[in-house]
Amino acid sequence: VPIITLTTDFGGGSSYVAAMKGVVLAINPAARLIDLTHDVRPQDVRQGAVVLDQVTRFFPAGTIHVAVIDPGVGTDRKIVYAAIGSQQYIAPDNGLLSLLAGRTPPSAIVAVADPSYWLSPVSATFHGRDIMAPVAARLSLGLDPEKLGPPLSKLVELAWPEPRLWPGRIEGEVLDVDSFGNLISNVTSDLLAAVPPNAAIRVACGGREVPGLASTYGKHPRSSLIALVGSSGMLELAVVDGSAARLLDAGVGAPVTVVWK
Amino acid sequence: VPIITLTTDFGGGSSYVAAMKGVVLAINPAARLIDLTHDVRPQDVRQGAVVLDQVTRFFPAGTIHVAVIDPGVGTDRKIVYAAIGSQQYIAPDNGLLSLLAGRTPPSAIVAVADPSYWLSPVSATFHGRDIMAPVAARLSLGLDPEKLGPPLSKLVELAWPEPRLWPGRIEGEVLDVDSFGNLISNVTSDLLAAVPPNAAIRVACGGREVPGLASTYGKHPRSSLIALVGSSGMLELAVVDGSAARLLDAGVGAPVTVVWK
Amino acid sequence: VPIITLTTDFGGGSSYVAAMKGVVLAINPAARLIDLTHDVRPQDVRQGAVVLDQVTRFFPAGTIHVAVIDPGVGTDRKIVYAAIGSQQYIAPDNGLLSLLAGRTPPSAIVAVADPSYWLSPVSATFHGRDIMAPVAARLSLGLDPEKLGPPLSKLVELAWPEPRLWPGRIEGEVLDVDSFGNLISNVTSDLLAAVPPNAAIRVACGGREVPGLASTYGKHPRSSLIALVGSSGMLELAVVDGSAARLLDAGVGAPVTVVWK
Repeated sequence: VPIITLTTDFGGGSSYVAAMKGVVLAINPAARLIDLTHDVRPQDVRQGAVVLDQVTRFFPAGTIHVAVIDPGVGTDRKIVYAAIGSQQYIAPDNGLLSLLAGRTPPSAIVAVADPSYWLSPVSATFHGRDIMAPVAARLSLGLDPEKLGPPLSKLVELAWPEPRLWPGRIEGEVLDVDSFGNLISNVTSDLLAAVPPNAAIRVACGGREVPGLASTYGKHPRSSLIALVGSSGMLELAVVDGSAARLLDAGVGAPVTVVWK
Repeated sequence: VPIITLTTDFGGGSSYVAAMKGVVLAINPAARLIDLTHDVRPQDVRQGAVVLDQVTRFFPAGTIHVAVIDPGVGTDRKIVYAAIGSQQYIAPDNGLLSLLAGRTPPSAIVAVADPSYWLSPVSATFHGRDIMAPVAARLSLGLDPEKLGPPLSKLVELAWPEPRLWPGRIEGEVLDVDSFGNLISNVTSDLLAAVPPNAAIRVACGGREVPGLASTYGKHPRSSLIALVGSSGMLELAVVDGSAARLLDAGVGAPVTVVWK
Repeated sequence: VPIITLTTDFGGGSSYVAAMKGVVLAINPAARLIDLTHDVRPQDVRQGAVVLDQVTRFFPAGTIHVAVIDPGVGTDRKIVYAAIGSQQYIAPDNGLLSLLAGRTPPSAIVAVADPSYWLSPVSATFHGRDIMAPVAARLSLGLDPEKLGPPLSKLVELAWPEPRLWPGRIEGEVLDVDSFGNLISNVTSDLLAAVPPNAAIRVACGGREVPGLASTYGKHPRSSLIALVGSSGMLELAVVDGSAARLLDAGVGAPVTVVWK
């Protein structure tokens, strides 16, 4: 039985999450549910897209990821099923899957359109519970995704800031802030491979500059600001035993610049 | 194996929740545990009752719901088992089940009284861990609820505010505030059926009036205050991409009035 | 299949927790995961040690507890496997297990050293995901812990404040603060057995004195400060329907004194 993960902006203690779990279990009592996160900022589709991109890759092939950051619920935005890499996704078609799909083109996209697989009646304000949860439960029981509705040729895309490589310089920006206050940029380790091995590197963010790249937090003094390639393979700024977001008063979208000589 | 859900006021990160799970799993290693919510305000029995009423209906028949909002732990308040509709409940008899039981009379009520099904010794301050968790685990293994103790004829009741229907007017109040700041009232869609189809309706709360009922959030401009029948079938006030609780400075108990001509 | 619990300082909504779960499930799709808590204060090894000591005892024999409060990740601190009592642990060797091990000497300690059981490559900053999660998953599939690396003779120890017994007086301190604001001290019920049965006892903390020991919260008036032996068998200070931490402006390390005549 495939695992079903849930990603929402409902807040960790929300009983809306529990309602979705109840709906899944009422259809497939053997379903195994994992909370990916429910702490996406309300209506923040971009943050949801970043989380899905960073975390779903670690799950077993065939896992069904349900993502409900859905400010357009009840409007004419679609709900989609997508197979991307080895994973399956059910989400509103509002860009939530666009970071994933930008890296790995989906092998299947289907509009979730046939109401015979949904709860009845469907509310106008909670499609996570009334449409996405029952569809995920039925997929976990073996329903062929092609039965959910007509195929689609593409997903809604969001514009994602691309880091730019110049001679002696990479310009990126902060993509996410984690619970430690680490500022995670869109500058990948692949891009950093452009820096010559012995070059003197400096990373700038929030009006501060850090010399060199650290390998890990614990090798530097408490409260020091460091730059390093983090566990997601992205350049990040961190404060040892502290918060870089607070020290630099910086958040998502803040410029991050790497220079070298 | 029936599912066991947990509802408490311990806070989402509380290790007290984990202790309850450990106790359940030590008795029934195959138990499947679902967190309903642990973010009920400390000691707020009424909020717990609202959550149980709104969410437990979605779970499979036979699910065992353990609810620990228990300011009277260690006093002479009883602990009860109740079968209500298709669901089973274990809770202190302090009104936690009274909203559920007010809608659907319990088919069985049993005092949890026989200590042979409990941990030993029982602490005076944590019956969720020492009595309710082991009882739930044993029920999930097939224990007949009648063995838990003597039958009871009724549960402790709380007075719940009833919405009132007048000519051209419904008077209700806010029953719950969700994590988005939506104000969920006790005015049901059934009651709203009393409004003539073409009447000009207005909803008032917190000194503001909203004309008409919206169908969903996304069809209205950002930051606009709307009234709509939400996913629980109750009239609610919401701010699109914002918080009605904050805009109206209103919370549980605030009057909500519907008028029409 | 043994249960795997997770204890971290990542915060309840952290997607880092989900990444660890994905890694476990990709190796053992049948693994059963329980969140112990993710709300340990960032880098607070001592608080993590207290939680593990208080809660893991309730789990079934053989449970695998993974604890990631790991300020030294990527430095030369070891990662260890330890069997303590009936439970198994995987944690950085930084004192996280020292409160448990101080009470019950481990029956086995092994350095987690053989990278063939880890993810590859291993990041420098997230060994919870890259080393501890895959090792836990493999142990849950039956891997012999002795294969993880060489045996160790002892764990890193932290100095824990010991309560002191004087004639007519016990001096202890606050060890933990729970989500209700209860101040949980290191004075055990065993130690309180030194007080003569009919002695007039007084408990002092934060500049206030409480006469006598209460049996439970609900027998005292709202807002009253009480002292009682809590559900972990430790002396604690509590405010009925309130917060002792706030009332006394006290936290971890605050002196707690018991005097009697």
